[in-house]
Amino acid sequence: MPLESGIEPSAEHIEMLEAAVERKDAAWIVEEIGDLHPADITQLLYDFDSPACKYIISLLPYDVGAEILTNLDSETRKKFLKVYDSTEFVEFIPYMDSDDAVDILTETPVRFREEVIARMTDVEMASHIVELLRYDEDCAGGLMAKEIIKANVNWTIVRTIEEIRRQAENVEKIYSVYVVDDNDILLGRVSLKKIILAKSHTLIKDIYEEEIVFIETYRDQNEVAEIMQRYDLESVPVVNIQGKLLGRITIDDVVDVITEQAEEEINLMSGISETVEEDESIWLSAKARLPWLLIGMTGGLLGAKFAGLFEWQIRLVPAMAFFIPLITATGGNVGIQSSTVMVQSLGNKTINSLSFLQKLGKTLLIALVNATVICLAVLSLTFLLGDPIALALTVSVAIFSVVILASVMGTVTPYLLDKVGVNPALASGPFITTANDLLGLAVYFGVAWWML
Amino acid sequence: MPLESGIEPSAEHIEMLEAAVERKDAAWIVEEIGDLHPADITQLLYDFDSPACKYIISLLPYDVGAEILTNLDSETRKKFLKVYDSTEFVEFIPYMDSDDAVDILTETPVRFREEVIARMTDVEMASHIVELLRYDEDCAGGLMAKEIIKANVNWTIVRTIEEIRRQAENVEKIYSVYVVDDNDILLGRVSLKKIILAKSHTLIKDIYEEEIVFIETYRDQNEVAEIMQRYDLESVPVVNIQGKLLGRITIDDVVDVITEQAEEEINLMSGISETVEEDESIWLSAKARLPWLLIGMTGGLLGAKFAGLFEWQIRLVPAMAFFIPLITATGGNVGIQSSTVMVQSLGNKTINSLSFLQKLGKTLLIALVNATVICLAVLSLTFLLGDPIALALTVSVAIFSVVILASVMGTVTPYLLDKVGVNPALASGPFITTANDLLGLAVYFGVAWWML
Repeated sequence: MPLESGIEPSAEHIEMLEAAVERKDAAWIVEEIGDLHPADITQLLYDFDSPACKYIISLLPYDVGAEILTNLDSETRKKFLKVYDSTEFVEFIPYMDSDDAVDILTETPVRFREEVIARMTDVEMASHIVELLRYDEDCAGGLMAKEIIKANVNWTIVRTIEEIRRQAENVEKIYSVYVVDDNDILLGRVSLKKIILAKSHTLIKDIYEEEIVFIETYRDQNEVAEIMQRYDLESVPVVNIQGKLLGRITIDDVVDVITEQAEEEINLMSGISETVEEDESIWLSAKARLPWLLIGMTGGLLGAKFAGLFEWQIRLVPAMAFFIPLITATGGNVGIQSSTVMVQSLGNKTINSLSFLQKLGKTLLIALVNATVICLAVLSLTFLLGDPIALALTVSVAIFSVVILASVMGTVTPYLLDKVGVNPALASGPFITTANDLLGLAVYFGVAWWML
Repeated sequence: MPLESGIEPSAEHIEMLEAAVERKDAAWIVEEIGDLHPADITQLLYDFDSPACKYIISLLPYDVGAEILTNLDSETRKKFLKVYDSTEFVEFIPYMDSDDAVDILTETPVRFREEVIARMTDVEMASHIVELLRYDEDCAGGLMAKEIIKANVNWTIVRTIEEIRRQAENVEKIYSVYVVDDNDILLGRVSLKKIILAKSHTLIKDIYEEEIVFIETYRDQNEVAEIMQRYDLESVPVVNIQGKLLGRITIDDVVDVITEQAEEEINLMSGISETVEEDESIWLSAKARLPWLLIGMTGGLLGAKFAGLFEWQIRLVPAMAFFIPLITATGGNVGIQSSTVMVQSLGNKTINSLSFLQKLGKTLLIALVNATVICLAVLSLTFLLGDPIALALTVSVAIFSVVILASVMGTVTPYLLDKVGVNPALASGPFITTANDLLGLAVYFGVAWWML
């Protein structure tokens, strides 16, 4: 029976499982969860502590355990692996893809890692892992797996199928067979479809596809994601600088990269300096948020000093003070809207239909429309609410100017950050809000000085 | 030779191509771009107007043209298709996957669409398209393609390979062969790897995998993305309510869904009510941003009226006014941080290690740490800068309270929005900033009233 997907375990069910773990009822547990998809067992385990998880996994086959370990999110796994010693952990390695094994090992202490590698019986896998550990985890080399099926360009289909048979145990998902010359230089690929449809004695050289996209080990992971999306690839071969085939990157790893990228961007926009897992300590979470709050605070104090220069205005017209939040908030909102649009257009490197100056021009026109609408709304509302006409005029003119200036700043800042190699999403965060507050105050008091 | 990937065309190169299009130099154009990957040709075309694009595409084979049309972003394509009539467009359909053809057709006027379907010579493909047009584009049915290879559970390997041969022309990327009974009810799948390795007279029923994940046509696209990510699937079969196999969804469509989701969330956070393409008109862009600016403005005016009640305080201590932006900005920053963390934890439905009350408790503790740090920093800095001690104390106490209250609001609001079925990302945007401004003012004047 095909599995119904995405069913969450009930609280009751989890309680029964907890009780079974308590009384070490192995038979009941295996009966209950043995048939579940490993990804679903992984979900269940988030409700258990590390020793209980270890006990449950010990009841399951090693391949299921290996998949669960691979699926766990990295924070949970780090805690969890503390209850394993290297002799126990090494048993799972043969059931993992080399890239997943390496991802897990890089999270463990060096000593544990070295012990695991020393205890591995599969020499080829061990050498793959040692090789992959060398790469930075943010580059193509760090994403690739060594499990590939390669065929020499001079082989026949029969010989290739033999090779698939030999290697198939290690390679779970085969997308295609890569074609290499005698020196392992990548020449192209043959799809499994073509292999199935070809006659046994056809030579690979007569049917392989030469024009394939490849990636060098040193490419950044964001570039890998961009290329795989652009060319719609489910897997891409990775080569070294000489063009020698070293491994492959599959689309599922790239899906993770894309998700991480989006999360990082959102965090930057909200002034959280790094992704902190939910179960991280209070202190770490507070530390990730504090820098931006302190920058905001410094900006606020500077603003207060600056406004202090205009104390005489406030003494003259105390009502002026009431509109300060309106001015700063509007500037902040406009700034964030403009910078978000700009950040997205910078991120979307594939479409560059407008030049920077054209974009700026367009932003200005949009700002002009919105500034006019808001300015008129503020003018009529303040007038209706009975504020003195001079004050109403001052506030309206100030808000008009703030909308225009904040748009320009929101557009220019991400562009400049990008130019100097900083993630432009930073500009959508507290950074631009703080700058806009100061700008807003300056404009407001400036206009007031001129008009009142 | 494998292709070097991700090389951008130079400005000079584009100019030469423009000149060639101008003088209708077909030979030069084909020589120059004929060998490029269709995805790279698509990139090039963004620099040309619709008639020029049509001319370039007319020089290329239909399969390349079909891929280019599929790759174009939907805004550009809409404009571009206006220069085609249905007789011309129908030629590309046989080279498209059914889901891509449907995506394109839904963007065209009904009359054009009907004409294209009426002109199609491949009756099977036409009926597939008519079927797919029925589904809402946000559900699994709207994402699926009809191009699948299915084998009856009673077939032999030989018979299955025959079927692959027959269907292979239509199905570009084969991930696996789906196994069905005589009524087309989905039973499982066989990987191409198993087919290659099996003996010719093995029966499918003896080697197929029964426990596979499937998706019903009515499931939401975000659910599809979640399931494919959770189970690490490169493709997933789609069935109707009776379990009959109708199509498949591949991971590349889901990558688009994930990218869109992230973009939508970021837009909500920045107060842009819908995704507006960069080349959309000024008016549309302005309209997408205006609602949030008006909400912010209304909040600001309410704040001004509210602050007006405390005019006597400002008359008494005009310096109080200077710290208003500090208070409101800090509240805004804290609110956005808390709501972003909460939104991410709500989105991450797979891990629910903490209950809502635990999360709220944790947020409060984090807020307590940050509130203390900021309160002390403000107290000492204002004191050092020579502000009167009573004012310095008032500002510090107010900022402490604002940090705590804004954290609670930033945590509770997304939770409530999610409960009533609204996208919680809305709470990270101008909405919470505006509410926090009002809250900040109330606290500030309240504390001042109590302390001064």
